Amino acid sequence: MDKIVRVNMSDLTTRMEAVPSEWAGLGGRALTSAIVAAEVIPTCHPLGENNKLVFAPGLLSGTTAANSGRFSAGAKSPLTGTIKESNAGGTAAQMFARLGIKALIIEGLPRGDSWYGLRVNKDGVSIAEETELIGKGNFAVVEALEARLGKKCGVLTIGPAGEMRMLSANISVKDSDSKLRSHGRGGLGAVMGSKRIKFIAIDDSGAAGITLADPEKFKAAARTFARALIEHPATGEGLPTFGTAEMVNIVNAAGGLPTRNFTYGRFEKHENISGETLRDTIIARGGSPKHGCQPGCIIQCSQVYNDKDGKYVTSGFEYETIEMLGANACIGDLDVIARADHLMDDIGVDSIETAVAIGVAMEAGVLPFGDGEGVLRLLREEIGAGTPLGRILGSGAGNVGRAYGVTRVPVVKNQAIPAYDPRSIKGIGITYATSTMGADHTSGYAVGTNLMGVGGGIVDPLKKEGQVELSRHLQIITVMLDSVGLCLFIGFPAADIPTCVPALIDMLNARFGLELTPEWIGGLGVTTLKTERAFNIAAGFTNKDDRLPEFFREPVAPHNAVWDFSGEEIDEFWNF
Amino acid sequence: MDKIVRVNMSDLTTRMEAVPSEWAGLGGRALTSAIVAAEVIPTCHPLGENNKLVFAPGLLSGTTAANSGRFSAGAKSPLTGTIKESNAGGTAAQMFARLGIKALIIEGLPRGDSWYGLRVNKDGVSIAEETELIGKGNFAVVEALEARLGKKCGVLTIGPAGEMRMLSANISVKDSDSKLRSHGRGGLGAVMGSKRIKFIAIDDSGAAGITLADPEKFKAAARTFARALIEHPATGEGLPTFGTAEMVNIVNAAGGLPTRNFTYGRFEKHENISGETLRDTIIARGGSPKHGCQPGCIIQCSQVYNDKDGKYVTSGFEYETIEMLGANACIGDLDVIARADHLMDDIGVDSIETAVAIGVAMEAGVLPFGDGEGVLRLLREEIGAGTPLGRILGSGAGNVGRAYGVTRVPVVKNQAIPAYDPRSIKGIGITYATSTMGADHTSGYAVGTNLMGVGGGIVDPLKKEGQVELSRHLQIITVMLDSVGLCLFIGFPAADIPTCVPALIDMLNARFGLELTPEWIGGLGVTTLKTERAFNIAAGFTNKDDRLPEFFREPVAPHNAVWDFSGEEIDEFWNF
Repeated sequence: MDKIVRVNMSDLTTRMEAVPSEWAGLGGRALTSAIVAAEVIPTCHPLGENNKLVFAPGLLSGTTAANSGRFSAGAKSPLTGTIKESNAGGTAAQMFARLGIKALIIEGLPRGDSWYGLRVNKDGVSIAEETELIGKGNFAVVEALEARLGKKCGVLTIGPAGEMRMLSANISVKDSDSKLRSHGRGGLGAVMGSKRIKFIAIDDSGAAGITLADPEKFKAAARTFARALIEHPATGEGLPTFGTAEMVNIVNAAGGLPTRNFTYGRFEKHENISGETLRDTIIARGGSPKHGCQPGCIIQCSQVYNDKDGKYVTSGFEYETIEMLGANACIGDLDVIARADHLMDDIGVDSIETAVAIGVAMEAGVLPFGDGEGVLRLLREEIGAGTPLGRILGSGAGNVGRAYGVTRVPVVKNQAIPAYDPRSIKGIGITYATSTMGADHTSGYAVGTNLMGVGGGIVDPLKKEGQVELSRHLQIITVMLDSVGLCLFIGFPAADIPTCVPALIDMLNARFGLELTPEWIGGLGVTTLKTERAFNIAAGFTNKDDRLPEFFREPVAPHNAVWDFSGEEIDEFWNF
Repeated sequence: MDKIVRVNMSDLTTRMEAVPSEWAGLGGRALTSAIVAAEVIPTCHPLGENNKLVFAPGLLSGTTAANSGRFSAGAKSPLTGTIKESNAGGTAAQMFARLGIKALIIEGLPRGDSWYGLRVNKDGVSIAEETELIGKGNFAVVEALEARLGKKCGVLTIGPAGEMRMLSANISVKDSDSKLRSHGRGGLGAVMGSKRIKFIAIDDSGAAGITLADPEKFKAAARTFARALIEHPATGEGLPTFGTAEMVNIVNAAGGLPTRNFTYGRFEKHENISGETLRDTIIARGGSPKHGCQPGCIIQCSQVYNDKDGKYVTSGFEYETIEMLGANACIGDLDVIARADHLMDDIGVDSIETAVAIGVAMEAGVLPFGDGEGVLRLLREEIGAGTPLGRILGSGAGNVGRAYGVTRVPVVKNQAIPAYDPRSIKGIGITYATSTMGADHTSGYAVGTNLMGVGGGIVDPLKKEGQVELSRHLQIITVMLDSVGLCLFIGFPAADIPTCVPALIDMLNARFGLELTPEWIGGLGVTTLKTERAFNIAAGFTNKDDRLPEFFREPVAPHNAVWDFSGEEIDEFWNF
């Protein structure tokens, strides 16, 4: 029997509850957003006692369904002030699912200066004071917990940035290789830090595991589903070969590669940081060009990146990080970016927010564009150490802009705009503007359709026509992916391969003994988006917050494209 | 013939224009707000080329009317994102009025890295490149300009903080003693810095001067008006004797003296920083307990504060600065606070915003509460030098809270709440919440009525009844004061002495040959407040921004008072 587990940090108590009927059919993002909307005062201070931090596995997490191990974290975001869901791979989702934990809700704030660790196992959750690991980086936390609890334990952890309640702090999740994946965006690590929880260790030994209502039907549907993923060119070929960095050359060719803090749309050294170069480098050094962020992944868009001596540097090395440091901060050097990625994972800051913040800091003159060693020094000696400069950078791109009086600050709702210039790829601009989470490419990844004709037909990236409808369609679909526990890239086969969505629905029905239809997807998406939007409106947000920064009205080379959507045109997004 | 003078910093041109008929009857705040609302795109970046900086003298500025020399500066505020008017004493308003300049509008941004100085005289305005004074403090700027242009020149200047576009940067105005008054709030110095204008020098020699439509009527009315000021206990006795610091003991007794970053409502060392102690200290050291911020002031609430050796330290030493450093930052030492006041004036930061930011920084552990020498060091070596810590502090209390993850951050619309706890003095809380400018005690000073029964009858400070109506009444009246060029304290005799307002109206009619009635005041207030509010709404603000921070729901000693207004109750403010 699935349950809700609650932790109250104000009185250090825990309890288990039955799942209320209105949450029974929800998982992942649909569930974290429903809980945050129901239980968090929209106007509360995100780092105060009235915010809650919620974790939930997806509906199919824990099953053998391919790529179903994404884990959702939700809260009111201290970075944006909006509702927030951020999902990640790793092993936690599947462990939670096997333990029958539909959601973990952490509320309140402890009095005093003590830090705590949580332990989740088949008996529920317990709280223990923690001293040894305080101040430690995420990799050290994972190592220490494995030594304490065994190699198989699951881990959610915050680094020094989360302890310092930095607004770009993330929550890291251990993956199958004892490396890290991140609930990156929106500063959820600061919320965990405000509740003085350094880590959550998970032990699923003795767990009841997953019961399937119809195992045979599930098996058949899972096979069809997996086949769709393998057949699609993006999930079956592009991503497994080059990882997400395949986008460097594609986006550069399209003139949408943010360069020098969004001053240009192409980067002369793009080949230095391309997916092709990344793959060649990895193979030459004995790394692995394929790697899954979660057990059961058959796309394997992650990788293991080694240094010149063949020593491990990083994994989960994504396009957005590579692009924003590589082109936008003008550091055309994968080795430097990989070291920065490792440092950001260890300190526990969102690599997108931090990379964009560094671009703004470069424009402010804090360090020169292209100064890779300077960036490594900033990460190690400033952000990681919590110096004043580290505090400025660690509180996100918007705060860097405020501190230095910069006008070219790429944020929406105070969250950094990632590695696609919305002037040249207008569909993603609509997603940045309208997402309930602040600028977030993953909430409706129009780039695939705009640049590659995948995931929803063909929509010209430089024209306004069809972009609002495209973003809306993708945002609704994405809620489903985020709620079922599927990775974002399932969106491509789901849109393009006719057997994919029916198989997905069959899996859900076979798992739970339900009779969902494909319409269920749209209903879940619409309801969840409207719930999230209602939270934001109650928190004080309006259509006026669904806007890109003023500087996007300046043309960007090579197309001299401008952001030319009117407010009214953007607001059409919410007409559903 | 009055004129509008325009400076375009994009192409370094200037021009003079006739006053459009819709602005003919406006002055001061009513005019700056009308111009900003008409000409500034509400959603523009406040430090970008689409913002405008507007200066305007009051309607009676330049005449012999007592206390009519306040000068208004307006723009979209980079601190709050709202429309902003900030007014100050000094000599500029009267010089502008004698030169027949109804408003100076500065628009655009220069290309390149040059800095400029403006010169305003009877022939108009000219722009010249400036190198010598860049990086200099405000006192040095005044000294250098007097050496260049003569002792009588008027000066508007920004310090290093304005050059660095810090969000708490103010614009300083030279007073009759070559000391400084400030357009303190809302970061208008950063707007001037963004336009790369270091100073505006004013020479009114050969000016046409003021023409009175009816000199005899004016003289008689001016005499009646001055008598009202002298007869009222606040303007005739309290303020001239103790300065605004008379409020220390009054507010402490009321339990509304913010102490230790708004943790307590009384300060045990309040006698150390009281108006009585201030006066005794000044007299003992040969300073002056009376001083006017503008020529023609008959209240003289300012002072000249000397150190132990009788050497000048500061003037314009206000209650809010004394309280927020003295009690809220727990530095119970007037000498230290006076030195801090001098430094803030020289660097060019708003002393309220900065003092509140320091309180938040103390809560964050940046330095201990009560560390006066530490505060002086922060001002000199960090804010003045533009170090990262200086950037954090110089960008205001809200940004300090964001950088350090503090939840007790006393701001409304990101502007710091000054020296009156709204839990114990609820009328001022309504003003903080509803002011179109962010938290600002001067926009509707309900403290006088709440604590002393002046300026609007008797309204119990601890009860909700009557506070919304009181604040609305005062905010409407205050627009008139800010537009006529009168100091805020005229609000007391205007409310309490029956001859005061008729005399004021008579002066306006005798000055311009008009037939205004007392109803004109309310009309001007209502129109201007609604214009300002419409700008803010167009910029994205809603009722949800008219709220005090969540922590004011916690009780504060000694009354265990809480901020208990509902949103709906606050929103009643705008029902007019």
